[in-house]
Amino acid sequence: MKLDEVTISRAILSEQHKIMTEYLDIDCAVVGGGPSGITCAAILAQNGVKVALIEKKLSIGGGMWGGGMMFPRIVVQEEARRLLDHFGIKYTEYEKGYYVASSVEAVSKSLAAACDAGAEVFNLTTVEDVVVKEDGGVSGLVINWTAVEMAGLHIDPLTMRTKVTVDATGHDSMIAHMVRKKGGALEIKGEGFMWAERAETNILSHTKEVFPGLIVAGMAANAVGGETRMGPIFGGMLLSGEKAANMIIERLKK
Amino acid sequence: MKLDEVTISRAILSEQHKIMTEYLDIDCAVVGGGPSGITCAAILAQNGVKVALIEKKLSIGGGMWGGGMMFPRIVVQEEARRLLDHFGIKYTEYEKGYYVASSVEAVSKSLAAACDAGAEVFNLTTVEDVVVKEDGGVSGLVINWTAVEMAGLHIDPLTMRTKVTVDATGHDSMIAHMVRKKGGALEIKGEGFMWAERAETNILSHTKEVFPGLIVAGMAANAVGGETRMGPIFGGMLLSGEKAANMIIERLKK
Amino acid sequence: MKLDEVTISRAILSEQHKIMTEYLDIDCAVVGGGPSGITCAAILAQNGVKVALIEKKLSIGGGMWGGGMMFPRIVVQEEARRLLDHFGIKYTEYEKGYYVASSVEAVSKSLAAACDAGAEVFNLTTVEDVVVKEDGGVSGLVINWTAVEMAGLHIDPLTMRTKVTVDATGHDSMIAHMVRKKGGALEIKGEGFMWAERAETNILSHTKEVFPGLIVAGMAANAVGGETRMGPIFGGMLLSGEKAANMIIERLKK
Amino acid sequence: MKLDEVTISRAILSEQHKIMTEYLDIDCAVVGGGPSGITCAAILAQNGVKVALIEKKLSIGGGMWGGGMMFPRIVVQEEARRLLDHFGIKYTEYEKGYYVASSVEAVSKSLAAACDAGAEVFNLTTVEDVVVKEDGGVSGLVINWTAVEMAGLHIDPLTMRTKVTVDATGHDSMIAHMVRKKGGALEIKGEGFMWAERAETNILSHTKEVFPGLIVAGMAANAVGGETRMGPIFGGMLLSGEKAANMIIERLKK
Amino acid sequence: MKLDEVTISRAILSEQHKIMTEYLDIDCAVVGGGPSGITCAAILAQNGVKVALIEKKLSIGGGMWGGGMMFPRIVVQEEARRLLDHFGIKYTEYEKGYYVASSVEAVSKSLAAACDAGAEVFNLTTVEDVVVKEDGGVSGLVINWTAVEMAGLHIDPLTMRTKVTVDATGHDSMIAHMVRKKGGALEIKGEGFMWAERAETNILSHTKEVFPGLIVAGMAANAVGGETRMGPIFGGMLLSGEKAANMIIERLKK
Amino acid sequence: MKLDEVTISRAILSEQHKIMTEYLDIDCAVVGGGPSGITCAAILAQNGVKVALIEKKLSIGGGMWGGGMMFPRIVVQEEARRLLDHFGIKYTEYEKGYYVASSVEAVSKSLAAACDAGAEVFNLTTVEDVVVKEDGGVSGLVINWTAVEMAGLHIDPLTMRTKVTVDATGHDSMIAHMVRKKGGALEIKGEGFMWAERAETNILSHTKEVFPGLIVAGMAANAVGGETRMGPIFGGMLLSGEKAANMIIERLKK
Amino acid sequence: MKLDEVTISRAILSEQHKIMTEYLDIDCAVVGGGPSGITCAAILAQNGVKVALIEKKLSIGGGMWGGGMMFPRIVVQEEARRLLDHFGIKYTEYEKGYYVASSVEAVSKSLAAACDAGAEVFNLTTVEDVVVKEDGGVSGLVINWTAVEMAGLHIDPLTMRTKVTVDATGHDSMIAHMVRKKGGALEIKGEGFMWAERAETNILSHTKEVFPGLIVAGMAANAVGGETRMGPIFGGMLLSGEKAANMIIERLKK
Amino acid sequence: MKLDEVTISRAILSEQHKIMTEYLDIDCAVVGGGPSGITCAAILAQNGVKVALIEKKLSIGGGMWGGGMMFPRIVVQEEARRLLDHFGIKYTEYEKGYYVASSVEAVSKSLAAACDAGAEVFNLTTVEDVVVKEDGGVSGLVINWTAVEMAGLHIDPLTMRTKVTVDATGHDSMIAHMVRKKGGALEIKGEGFMWAERAETNILSHTKEVFPGLIVAGMAANAVGGETRMGPIFGGMLLSGEKAANMIIERLKK
Repeated sequence: MKLDEVTISRAILSEQHKIMTEYLDIDCAVVGGGPSGITCAAILAQNGVKVALIEKKLSIGGGMWGGGMMFPRIVVQEEARRLLDHFGIKYTEYEKGYYVASSVEAVSKSLAAACDAGAEVFNLTTVEDVVVKEDGGVSGLVINWTAVEMAGLHIDPLTMRTKVTVDATGHDSMIAHMVRKKGGALEIKGEGFMWAERAETNILSHTKEVFPGLIVAGMAANAVGGETRMGPIFGGMLLSGEKAANMIIERLKK
Repeated sequence: MKLDEVTISRAILSEQHKIMTEYLDIDCAVVGGGPSGITCAAILAQNGVKVALIEKKLSIGGGMWGGGMMFPRIVVQEEARRLLDHFGIKYTEYEKGYYVASSVEAVSKSLAAACDAGAEVFNLTTVEDVVVKEDGGVSGLVINWTAVEMAGLHIDPLTMRTKVTVDATGHDSMIAHMVRKKGGALEIKGEGFMWAERAETNILSHTKEVFPGLIVAGMAANAVGGETRMGPIFGGMLLSGEKAANMIIERLKK
Repeated sequence: MKLDEVTISRAILSEQHKIMTEYLDIDCAVVGGGPSGITCAAILAQNGVKVALIEKKLSIGGGMWGGGMMFPRIVVQEEARRLLDHFGIKYTEYEKGYYVASSVEAVSKSLAAACDAGAEVFNLTTVEDVVVKEDGGVSGLVINWTAVEMAGLHIDPLTMRTKVTVDATGHDSMIAHMVRKKGGALEIKGEGFMWAERAETNILSHTKEVFPGLIVAGMAANAVGGETRMGPIFGGMLLSGEKAANMIIERLKK
Repeated sequence: MKLDEVTISRAILSEQHKIMTEYLDIDCAVVGGGPSGITCAAILAQNGVKVALIEKKLSIGGGMWGGGMMFPRIVVQEEARRLLDHFGIKYTEYEKGYYVASSVEAVSKSLAAACDAGAEVFNLTTVEDVVVKEDGGVSGLVINWTAVEMAGLHIDPLTMRTKVTVDATGHDSMIAHMVRKKGGALEIKGEGFMWAERAETNILSHTKEVFPGLIVAGMAANAVGGETRMGPIFGGMLLSGEKAANMIIERLKK
Repeated sequence: MKLDEVTISRAILSEQHKIMTEYLDIDCAVVGGGPSGITCAAILAQNGVKVALIEKKLSIGGGMWGGGMMFPRIVVQEEARRLLDHFGIKYTEYEKGYYVASSVEAVSKSLAAACDAGAEVFNLTTVEDVVVKEDGGVSGLVINWTAVEMAGLHIDPLTMRTKVTVDATGHDSMIAHMVRKKGGALEIKGEGFMWAERAETNILSHTKEVFPGLIVAGMAANAVGGETRMGPIFGGMLLSGEKAANMIIERLKK
Repeated sequence: MKLDEVTISRAILSEQHKIMTEYLDIDCAVVGGGPSGITCAAILAQNGVKVALIEKKLSIGGGMWGGGMMFPRIVVQEEARRLLDHFGIKYTEYEKGYYVASSVEAVSKSLAAACDAGAEVFNLTTVEDVVVKEDGGVSGLVINWTAVEMAGLHIDPLTMRTKVTVDATGHDSMIAHMVRKKGGALEIKGEGFMWAERAETNILSHTKEVFPGLIVAGMAANAVGGETRMGPIFGGMLLSGEKAANMIIERLKK
Repeated sequence: MKLDEVTISRAILSEQHKIMTEYLDIDCAVVGGGPSGITCAAILAQNGVKVALIEKKLSIGGGMWGGGMMFPRIVVQEEARRLLDHFGIKYTEYEKGYYVASSVEAVSKSLAAACDAGAEVFNLTTVEDVVVKEDGGVSGLVINWTAVEMAGLHIDPLTMRTKVTVDATGHDSMIAHMVRKKGGALEIKGEGFMWAERAETNILSHTKEVFPGLIVAGMAANAVGGETRMGPIFGGMLLSGEKAANMIIERLKK
Repeated sequence: MKLDEVTISRAILSEQHKIMTEYLDIDCAVVGGGPSGITCAAILAQNGVKVALIEKKLSIGGGMWGGGMMFPRIVVQEEARRLLDHFGIKYTEYEKGYYVASSVEAVSKSLAAACDAGAEVFNLTTVEDVVVKEDGGVSGLVINWTAVEMAGLHIDPLTMRTKVTVDATGHDSMIAHMVRKKGGALEIKGEGFMWAERAETNILSHTKEVFPGLIVAGMAANAVGGETRMGPIFGGMLLSGEKAANMIIERLKK
């Protein structure tokens, strides 16, 4: 067939313009494309929620790509094995209850599931600020190109309206920090010493709404809750993403 | 269950040690984790070839994540639509013969397929040099951690033996340049002006063995062959990866 | 009135989407927003040509803002005084035939004229490459966000179709260099010593079509033509932009 | 005519020397060349005030050039439409009360108006400190070349005497911070969450004299007043600049 | 003999894999490869303790290589002369009681002794965090490649179990700071003015267990204890390393 | 005893002043403190040659510290085992003829031997240029502090007279390049592909006087000779250093 | 005559070794080679005091070289004119009591006077810390090469004994800050707003001993005393240096 | 007396404006403020020539400040001793014919002499280009603020007319390179190996007019002439500056 560069360019512009315009008003924004964010977005989309997964980097997957000390393997414990199965990720058993998977496969399979289900991904997108109005809760995100910040440019952002936002930005818990820095009543206790077992046990209780309209998940949940550090075991991360998704599904039903 | 950090650490070390030791002697190394490299590795693995996909960055997917001008959509033409179907990537038709897909979905689905089929991914790994011995062909790769180069450290590399190597490193065609720089008889013509149609038409004829043991695919094929530039249309990339895979499958049968 | 952030965001996206889609197929692209580029674009637009002024930086005006050695004044000689009048730029006479104007006023007035006349400005936009097809002439530009390059990202570009392109990128003459680097038959002689008078006299003869579809103007014309350097006198720059515009108006009439 | 480089150089030096010497003692200094600063300087000059617009960058216009997320369009609401008309900036209506203009045209037209009216622009000029003497108010600015700071040089500044100073430096509110840092009684509350409507409504009440001799305008007014954030809607910015100008005109009449 | 690159690579991987796996569970980790750390590790190993010396840089020796002001000589006083003899380091007497040695020889001889005795060195390894569990003491270290941090990558660490840890990281006393930053009850007083004699006299009393499972040695001991600074005299450093070693040998006997 | 900071300072200055003054006129300078340089310097000193080992970095050992891919182990083949024994470096046999040693131990033991024998080490010292006079051979080195170059300072160097110089600067072969760049008749062929066996076999024939007064050793020998690359096997390096030393001992006897 | 490079090198090393060894024990160290430091050192030396002028940069003169806003002229008022005469610096009278001199001449003439009188200059030398012992006063300086800090190296310093130290490091007042940071009882009030007249009037009362053994002069005196800022008028600087010198001469007589 | 900041500022501006305007048309420009440039300018001024000494850095003195390897001493041989006496620089005799002086004193005394004699110094000034017109010789310099280049700004230069220009820019011989790069008939042979005696002997014959209107002096003379390197002996530098001055004095008499 005959190929025309301008048509290719217009195809890209038009399709993405449609998506961007439509996704400025959504049910849920999940900020941070690591394991808990991907899991959360996948399960939300699988349940019909209009969800955007916002990631500041070019690629999705965050720290999961690198496994432990650059050896690209992750460990998942018994309790979360069913989520590996849910996403179709292969694993081997190292010792009883310790399952080892390829970190690359873990990223690609869970992300493929999210895309399949209709989650829309906004990569290279930075959240600069949040919208908080009369009702005192987070009702939107102020977004910009990550490249604008990387290039040191001074450019105004745009705004996306959300019913609920998930902070899955890892131990930086960036959305929670934005809220607190501008005066929101929200305590951030910070991550504790390394103690994987305690961290894995408690992460689900830290996965909750910490400010009206803002739910924390994954390492951000533990960082806000003052929990210990977990290292390269990923079961709690996946379960936390799942729990956040389920909380939102319940809330949106009302 | 009780979780122990040292067991987690040993699980990661042992599983990856097994993989690394085993994969120092393989059938095929595909260098570069962009669209043609992923496609090539996926099809090789689906046909039982012992293949390593080597990528210098932390994440796989290369330039495909960003779509065109950071709008995360790619265009694929009619001829390559069957490969979108092969990987289960959704698309819409913009104009007749122009299919638009999510760039994020395209990466994750094709990579998931490669992992499913058993391709082993070595991310954060840089190819520093190639092995060329008496027979005058490429018979191995000299690899190192990318972090070593990024940190400006001076550390010796290790070596991986291969029967055939695919240079899928994009328009830098890094493996081809290494071969030429050290005296290999190999002409690199460089990429021409933008002219998508010609580039898409000719890429398959440029996908070939350019030096004993070295096949070029994707943009590297066009760069070595002196072909024109293609922009954000990805059909030729996928088809080139497929062709390189099929050439190797044939060769290894002998 | 009630103000809504999402409506504001959609207003911006939609208006610019309309412009971008429309301007992927134009009469003339002027690359470089310095004095000759602005003048050229202004006169083209004043004559009904569909013209895009493409500038890689955030602001338009280039080196004119800084005057000479950061003293924000420029000098214009008698021959070009009518162009100051054309744009409504105030000046004083220092010695007979030497007119001094504010460099800031010169930028803002000439740019305001270009906008008034309907020239569309694409700032923060880098030209990465040109389109050259069967007919062997420049028939389009390969564009990307400047921020992509500044941030060191690897992102595919889009393409803009043009009937004629003006290289007004200053003494770097970037478009001419792109054409030459990829094999176009085009000699670039480089700028000579400082000799303002000769440079000002000869610039008009250097303002011409140097490759099919590509006209050079301003310092780029002198750099390609091997002319001497001119320093902070701007008459020749303005006249060169005007001449390039008139050549294009003539050509497009055919 | 015969052109002489030394005459050109002397013309620039002499004209700017005249300006600099004269403008070391002025009625009003507007610091910051963004939309509110330009508007303020334009209206002051149109009313006969001897005003200097001081900008640290090479170009004037600040964040207005980039529109929203690098899409070069800005939105202005009904209340401020008359200022677009005042400067001759074209616009289209997106929805009732939302007017969209080219950000490039907005900069060039408003700046052209300021120049026309006789405002003198000092670009590439940094305000390092303020003069405060016996009477306890700001009575001058300590200025230097921006290039001195960019180059990391240690060079003494010069001093400019002012009757009133406008801090239009954006949300950094740099002059207000200087005053506070050295002990001036001045509270800076910081910018709140994004809430465009509230910000646009309240900006005029925050545009006021916050320290003897120092008026804040534009985003600096909202940052000092603890107001919410506004994003790429510019009506309030223009109105704030206008209000600051009118306050100064009144004061100088006395 | 015939040499095979893959065998060489496997030899390195396998030997180090054995070491890494084995050393994830040790008696003592000495963090910091300066003079006190090397001395401590050497004496521990000479007494049969399973000890790892962890150094973030590529080379071991720290600040000792450079002597004073880049003149590669160090001074040791009478009290510590026997440790020079213990390691076989040559010296000359400058004035009574002041012995001068080559700083290069001092590093290589003491490190050779540590290696001879079986201390295992982990260079290019960063301690990111510590493990603290129910018993409230340091029971492990969270380690990563230094290159990961230098390259700005986001990669999970692994964990090493220890019975006792020595902070010999110099005046940064990095392990002590980690403990304190995450809430451990540990006061760090900081280094005082230069006063070599007092520092050398008191360093042994500061060499002690400052938090359960954590002993400080060398400059880290003085920094935690609020002692004065010592400069390029190394007797106290060596004696502090020796004392820490002896304390640990006693403890492990129990 | 009473300790005085000024006495400590004077002790360091005086001892090093003695060394520097004495070593400005020596038998042999070995440039580069990697494995071949250390071996060469050690054997020279053990045979009574007045030798300076010059290293630009703070620490000695070069690339040997990092083993292969940051796993701190090196491999030595049968032919060079006796040099491990000579320096007292422990090793284990991986496969017949492949001996694995700790890279850290290898550095410290060989360097300790060099120091023991009286080789003087000048670390943090850069060779800027060479002295070549009437007789046309290298008769001295132009040295400076490495910190001068790192800090970007413009400071004149000093000069050291040598009877013979060894370029052991690795594959950069910096001294050979200096000689060639200033017109010395010396061909530098550059390193070839990876082929460890050939490299190890031929390195001794490349270890020779390549310009009057200049001997190349280690990777510099192979780089000048156009030999293949060797990777993390160190036998040839040690043997090359030994051969260079023996050639010099013979020459100086005359 | 015959010239020998090694003799030249030894001449430099030996002469400077003599100076360094001798100057590790002096009457007075003046830290900072700006106008007040040079003046102080010159007058001290002219009165027979053994004085070292320590400057971290390569060149002496500090901010005086650049005049005001890079225009290399300084202004001195009537009160200090006699010091211009004392150093033989030419000047012209701009208005009554305002004398303008070349900043370059001012540096070179005052520094030449200091050298003539026997002050010894240590350039490229950083003061890292101070010596404070039992008596609680500053009794020495801890010095290092500036290049060590610029190159990011970790190298131990040497120590210089002083009877009195002058902090003439400008508004950073670096020595005073060191003393305060390590617990010395010393208040540093910081520089106020620009108000040249007040600053020039009060600088002499701020020039005093602020901690036992430590006198502040020049801008450091005003910064410690909380005085206003002065800009490019240098009379107070010169007078402050003179006063500090006279105080020290008196003290040393006792 | 009463001090006014604006008067101080105007005094600086006006005095330097007078100098700049006057010095845009001079007899001789000496480019480069190292030892040969200072000497040349001093002797020219002492003979009544209107001379500008142009230096790109803030301070004058170049590489002379640092002596050899940061030890601030320089050596001058017998032949040039009279120039030390001419400038009043103190020295000691190390060996017969080798005179050692303080590098700091050497700079300040020679520069003070130049200022005394009326040479005008333009520091922080970069020569960007030269003026060459019909007669084919250098007849002017294109100058800019160094800070413009350091800050990466794009600002037009001004022009200075000269009868003769001296390139005293050191071994970069920057003016000679500018001339050659733009096509001037001028061979630059580059500096040879270190061989102080030959360099010192031949420098005077290399000090000559190498292009109409351009004389090279100091290290630039040797670099253009292909002479050997000299190191920290300064006799030849001073004599070369003197010779260049005398040649110019003769020429201007005609």
